[in-house]
Amino acid sequence: MSLKLGDEFPNFHLKTSAGDFQFHEWLGNQWGILFSHPADYTPVCTTELSRAAKLAPEFAKRNTKLIGLSCDTVENHHGWIKDLQSYAGSVCSDGACKTVSSGEFAFPIIDDSDRKLAKQLGMIDPDEFDTKGLPLTARAVFFIGLDKKVKASLLYPATTGRNFDEILRLLDSLQLSARLPIATPVDWKVGDKVMVPPSVKDEDVQKYFPQGVQIKNDLPSGKSYIRMAQV
Amino acid sequence: MSLKLGDEFPNFHLKTSAGDFQFHEWLGNQWGILFSHPADYTPVCTTELSRAAKLAPEFAKRNTKLIGLSCDTVENHHGWIKDLQSYAGSVCSDGACKTVSSGEFAFPIIDDSDRKLAKQLGMIDPDEFDTKGLPLTARAVFFIGLDKKVKASLLYPATTGRNFDEILRLLDSLQLSARLPIATPVDWKVGDKVMVPPSVKDEDVQKYFPQGVQIKNDLPSGKSYIRMAQV
Repeated sequence: MSLKLGDEFPNFHLKTSAGDFQFHEWLGNQWGILFSHPADYTPVCTTELSRAAKLAPEFAKRNTKLIGLSCDTVENHHGWIKDLQSYAGSVCSDGACKTVSSGEFAFPIIDDSDRKLAKQLGMIDPDEFDTKGLPLTARAVFFIGLDKKVKASLLYPATTGRNFDEILRLLDSLQLSARLPIATPVDWKVGDKVMVPPSVKDEDVQKYFPQGVQIKNDLPSGKSYIRMAQV
Repeated sequence: MSLKLGDEFPNFHLKTSAGDFQFHEWLGNQWGILFSHPADYTPVCTTELSRAAKLAPEFAKRNTKLIGLSCDTVENHHGWIKDLQSYAGSVCSDGACKTVSSGEFAFPIIDDSDRKLAKQLGMIDPDEFDTKGLPLTARAVFFIGLDKKVKASLLYPATTGRNFDEILRLLDSLQLSARLPIATPVDWKVGDKVMVPPSVKDEDVQKYFPQGVQIKNDLPSGKSYIRMAQV
């Protein structure tokens, strides 16, 4: 099984660095981002999870819980978290980094050492193996909405560290379009104009966008489907 | 079937705005990016495909062919391409835009009006339907290597336009790590330092990185897995 948009994210029983729980109960009434990495004590993963930990306040502001996953054990996660905290502290010096560099880690990391989730969710990287020759996870990301359904996903190989600015941008778009009848154009960022999708009929535009909508009327087709608004 | 990393991308026979062909033969000895959009004559898709067309020289520099896909017919694609060219011309004024705004469009767009690829490749957006109530494609992206295998993928809903800077960044990382035994850290951009992955043994570091490697030796674990190099 690989998850498609709109599929319910399975309610796995999880063993994590922050204890054992059912995934849906842990999410509660929040959005979720589940992201896998190939292995603890490896370089790219360290840069990624440190960055994610530093961004914890940004995800919290967005009512979103983060959870990591790899095929390592909880014991390995605990040891590696000390490295993550040290690394996070070493690459920046502001207040947020100090919070990251000690105490409880910013989010749980799942122990998928039996590769159950990795296999079920199609997260295996065919080019990565541990010292025993067992497969490892790629850099998958699942965005999970309040209804526990998959809203977006990314699948990068072990060799490419993700871009957390893009992860936040995508989350902002998902949340804004869950709240308002809008869609966000290519390369959109918070504050940019949004698009009024075809599902909003002309007669409803005023209701949803009392501040006005800018319509492009000079396309060769003569159709007026490019309608932009500031929200 | 949904494609996982390392799966061969199927060699579909394609009907496109630039003629009919077998996918693999059309790719030839180039990388490929196949990306779907929900529908022609819709706002977000127009911003995305216009941006992609303007970036055609960037993809060409990277020996990469772009190909779009939606559940519209070739006839619709031809009509919409005129809008795309007009739109691309209207939102910028440099030389590249002039090239985009007339003549042959920068890349083919697949006619998947029978939804064969959309269904086989797991690209359906459960929240999007055409006027007949038929399902539409989400914003999927497949990165395909010279070996015709999937190297990375993205799956965004209709409501979120993609980020083409991230698509180029990811492509740059995929190509660099296909050429050299390196991996790129979180948020990496061309020119930034890269990571030496665990697969490169200490005794081989000098061979691959004669310019030297910077090793982080002060992690709590005492392990020296963070090795960075400029390439």
